[in-house]
This record gives sequence, C-alpha cells and structure tokens, in this order.
Amino acid sequence: MENPLNLIKNEISKIEETLQSLRVSQHPFINKVSEYVLFAGGKRVRPLLCVLSAKALNPDLKNSLYETSLLFEYLHVATLLHDDVVDSAEFRRGRKAARNLWGNQATILVGDYLYAKALKIASSLQNPSIMEEITQTTLLMSEGEVLQLLHLDDTEISEEAYYEVIYRKTAVLISCSCKVGALLSGVEDKKAEELANFGYNLGMAFQVIDDLLDYVSAETGKDLGKDFSEGKVTLPIIFALNLAPAQEKKELLRLLKSKDIEAKDFKRAYEIIEKNRGFELTFQKARSFIDTAKDYLQFLPPSPYKEALLYISDYLLTRKK
Amino acid sequence: MENPLNLIKNEISKIEETLQSLRVSQHPFINKVSEYVLFAGGKRVRPLLCVLSAKALNPDLKNSLYETSLLFEYLHVATLLHDDVVDSAEFRRGRKAARNLWGNQATILVGDYLYAKALKIASSLQNPSIMEEITQTTLLMSEGEVLQLLHLDDTEISEEAYYEVIYRKTAVLISCSCKVGALLSGVEDKKAEELANFGYNLGMAFQVIDDLLDYVSAETGKDLGKDFSEGKVTLPIIFALNLAPAQEKKELLRLLKSKDIEAKDFKRAYEIIEKNRGFELTFQKARSFIDTAKDYLQFLPPSPYKEALLYISDYLLTRKK
Repeated sequence: MENPLNLIKNEISKIEETLQSLRVSQHPFINKVSEYVLFAGGKRVRPLLCVLSAKALNPDLKNSLYETSLLFEYLHVATLLHDDVVDSAEFRRGRKAARNLWGNQATILVGDYLYAKALKIASSLQNPSIMEEITQTTLLMSEGEVLQLLHLDDTEISEEAYYEVIYRKTAVLISCSCKVGALLSGVEDKKAEELANFGYNLGMAFQVIDDLLDYVSAETGKDLGKDFSEGKVTLPIIFALNLAPAQEKKELLRLLKSKDIEAKDFKRAYEIIEKNRGFELTFQKARSFIDTAKDYLQFLPPSPYKEALLYISDYLLTRKK
Repeated sequence: MENPLNLIKNEISKIEETLQSLRVSQHPFINKVSEYVLFAGGKRVRPLLCVLSAKALNPDLKNSLYETSLLFEYLHVATLLHDDVVDSAEFRRGRKAARNLWGNQATILVGDYLYAKALKIASSLQNPSIMEEITQTTLLMSEGEVLQLLHLDDTEISEEAYYEVIYRKTAVLISCSCKVGALLSGVEDKKAEELANFGYNLGMAFQVIDDLLDYVSAETGKDLGKDFSEGKVTLPIIFALNLAPAQEKKELLRLLKSKDIEAKDFKRAYEIIEKNRGFELTFQKARSFIDTAKDYLQFLPPSPYKEALLYISDYLLTRKK
C-alpha cells in the first residue's frame, strides 16, 4: 500500500498544479491580488480533504475533482482577505498583508470576488445538495465573523462559546470540504454525513491545536503569544481560569487585559496557565476531537485514501507549528 | 383591467410585508445593522421586477415567490454596505451611512452575511439554472466593483467602457431579477432569456437616468452634482466631450478634475455639457434602452403584470429624482 505521506504530497501537487494553471479572473489586477494570497504558503488543507474524502469513497472518480476542490481554497482566502481588513492586520503568514500593498478597498472587493468565484464553481456542479451545503456553510461562517467581532474582548467566554466560535471560524468549512468531497463521489447522504462529522471533529482539533501552538511555539521567550498579547481568550486560558485559585485567576486576567505586555509578563502568564493544566487539558481536548474524527472513518473500506485521512488526523496532534 | 400603478403598489406592499416579517438572522446585532439599511427607503425595484416577471408568465404562481424575491434586495444591500466602506461614504439615502454608526468592520461583515443569506435563499430553491444565473451575476458584479475602483479617475473612459461599468453595477442584477422571476414561473429557458434582455435594457436605462439626474436635479443651483464634484465620468460628460470644441473640452476637463469646485464652476460645467448636447443625447440613449426593453415584452400574453412592467419602463423616463 502506498505510503500515506507520499500520497498526500502527490495529491497536494495536483491541487497546486490545478491552482497554478487556472486564473481566477481575466483581469490582471484581480489575479495579482488573489495570487499574492493564494500562493503565500497555504497548505491546501481544505482542497486536500475534499479530494481525499471523494477518493476514499470512490477511488476511480473521474471528473473535475481538483478544479472543484479549489473552491474551498478560494472561500478560505476570501475570508482571510476580509479578516485582514477587519483586524487591520499588518502581516499575514510572515509577509505584508494584501491590504498593506493594495489598500483596504481593493482587498475587500477582491475578497468579494473570490467568494463569488467559489460559489460559481459550486453552482457549475448543478448539484442542489452540494449547493445547499456550501451556502449554509458560508452563512454560518459570516454570521460567526460578526459574533466574533462583538465578543472581541470577552474574557467571560465559556468553553461552549469558544467551541461555537471555532466551529464557525474553522470547523464548518473543513467539514463542508469533506462532505462535498463525499457527495462528489456519488454516495448517499448518510455516508456523506459521516465524512461531514469526520471533518467537523478534525476542524475543531485543528483550531484547538492552532490556539495551543500560539502559546507553545512562543515558549522560547523570543516571541510573545500573539493571541495573548491581543487579549484573545482561547481554550488554554479558559481551562486555566476554571482551575486557577482566585489570586492566580486575577493575575492571569490582569496580564491578559494589559495593553503593552512584555516578555516577562507573557512568561508569567504561561506559568499560570501551565500550572493550572491549561495546556494539558487543551491538548487532551484536541486528542479527543481527533479520536472522534477517526471513529467516523471506520465505515470506509480500506484504501490508501482512508490511510491518508487517518495520517492527517494523527499528524495534527504532532505538528509543532 | 387593474390600474398598473395600483397593482405595483400592491405588489410592493406584499414585498414590504414579507421583508418585515422575516428576520435575516437570529442575532439582534446583525438584524439591527441589516434593517437599518434594508428599511432606509429602498424602492424594492429588484424584488418587484422578479415578482412581476414571474406573474407576467404565470399569474397563478403559488409558491414562496415573495420570500424568494427578497434575495435580490439582500444582494443589493450587501453591495451598498461594501460600497460605503470602499467609498468611505458618510451618508446613504440622506442618513448616516451604516459604517458611520457601527464602523467599517461590522459593515463589511454584515455585508458578507447578507450576501451569504441571499445565496442561501437561492440554493433552497434547488434549481441549478437559477443558481448558475445568480452566481454568474454576483461574479460579474464583484469583478465590476474591482474594475471600477481601478478606473476611478479615468476621464478617458469611452462610451463602451461606461456601458460595461453600468452593466455590472446595475443592469446585471436587474436582468437577473427578471430572469429568475421568469424561471420561477416554470417557462423554458428561451422565454426566460427574453425577460433577462428586458431587465438588461431596463437596468441600463435606470442607471443612465440616475447619472443624468445627478446633474439635472442639481440644476437649481443649491446643490452641486455629486458625481461631478467627485470627478466621476458619466454619460453626459462623455457625450459632451465628444462634441465640444477643443477649448470647451479643456475647460470641462479642468473643472471636472479640480478639487474644491464651487456652485459657479458646476454651473459653468453644466452649461458646457448642455451646449454640447450631453444631457439631450444621454436622455435619448435612455429612451432607446427603454424602447428595446419594451420590445422584449411583446411575446408576453396581455395581463396586468405585463402592463405593470411596461408602466415601470415608461416611468423611468419621467422620474425626477
């Protein structure tokens, strides 16, 4: 059986080639702005999951699977462009944010364009179930963006509210990518739903780990955690606040809310979170999402594509950045 | 036969009632921002044309026609919200722009939400032809928005380039509203295409007249033309520049490009445009679009709905604001 990592690399190459060969628009400016963000080191997680889900159910699938899978990358990038404007971001993936090069106006409008492009690709499939899935997803995502804006500084956020935020921010699109892949393979809705559940749990784990890494990869002391310095409440904080004695809870909240934190403040916050099992419990939660995700794949017949999906699931728990 | 104006008022009331009775979201904040713009005196042109087009082909149509027609209002309002951010608009329809009350961030995101909502309504129809029509329309619109941003100060704009701009800005959505109405009535694609062509020409006339009124309703001397003071090149300018002698052409361009124009400058520009038949030829062009629009309705059987569509067409040429 093919090594899952090789298979994954191979599928990513095909996605990458398709992305390179297709222009999003006939207009050079739209392409320039889009390609700046599309080729900024994205890992193609969503198209990849779409392709693997489809092939795990129907390995011989012969249609425009790769072209279709790109719609999830376009959707994702559209949200990144709008997020950067909303957050007044200076950087994205270590480079200047698009809005820093072409301004907020063009960034908003190219985001709108990529969103429209994604929906156009979806509608060309002429498959009402797929279309409903995708429009429901974008509705949940855009509603989530507004809710996140409103709860910007809410340190009272509960574990449940956090899951709701990351569901809309990350998991719903990943779940949709898997489900649409399944629907493209031609299986009945019930089987597609299993893939949707896999994607949901995988997506939740993905974001939980992302939020954990924001602390752990900053541990060296060179960096401050980005989320923490922005006062963002994520799962490590929520768990630590639940367990911390009153004094430490107060201190952690004070550090979280202070404007210009220094390395020593972040170090202290890190200590408090670690002592109160914030990181440990967060990692456990991620593992539990991954376990559930993998359970939903059990019904799949053995195949290298199934192995690849399992490999990705395990990989999430070991990644360091 | 029912008086067309009464029929139109009656249909608008039904659209208005439906709009009032449906919430766009479960979240009060999203509703507040959306409703601020949705209930700001919009004339419901797009839902109205959708409803009338459907009923002109099938007067007994019994489905969720009014609910469906709202998707065109949501799409329209979504573009207004993003336009206001892109243009840094202070006002919209005589009131503070939404971005002035809730900020650019919320305005961008609620715009995204309304767009997603519109597409969700469309997908719930489970009609691939309708979905393709709508996604193609939003793609053309969003591409047009980018192109307009790039040509912001282009005084060399040709008549053809102007038509392309107003097609994407206005006519394509109006055409889509009519065509989708036709498709909802259940007719074959060829008949729906006639309604699409009607809508295209009506939409073109609508925007041409809008651009004309920006001058003519400012004639009293109290106001400066908004487009002119922003240096925007519309059809009256294009026609006048074509016919004006070199000296007047130069003067008109100088006035158009100057930063802080006064009432007397606008008056002088108005004179030059009028003398060189800019307004007259613009109005003729609008009439020609309307004549073509009405031709496309000839195949319709006689009905009060057909009469209402003809009435709206004629009304466009006589409206004063």
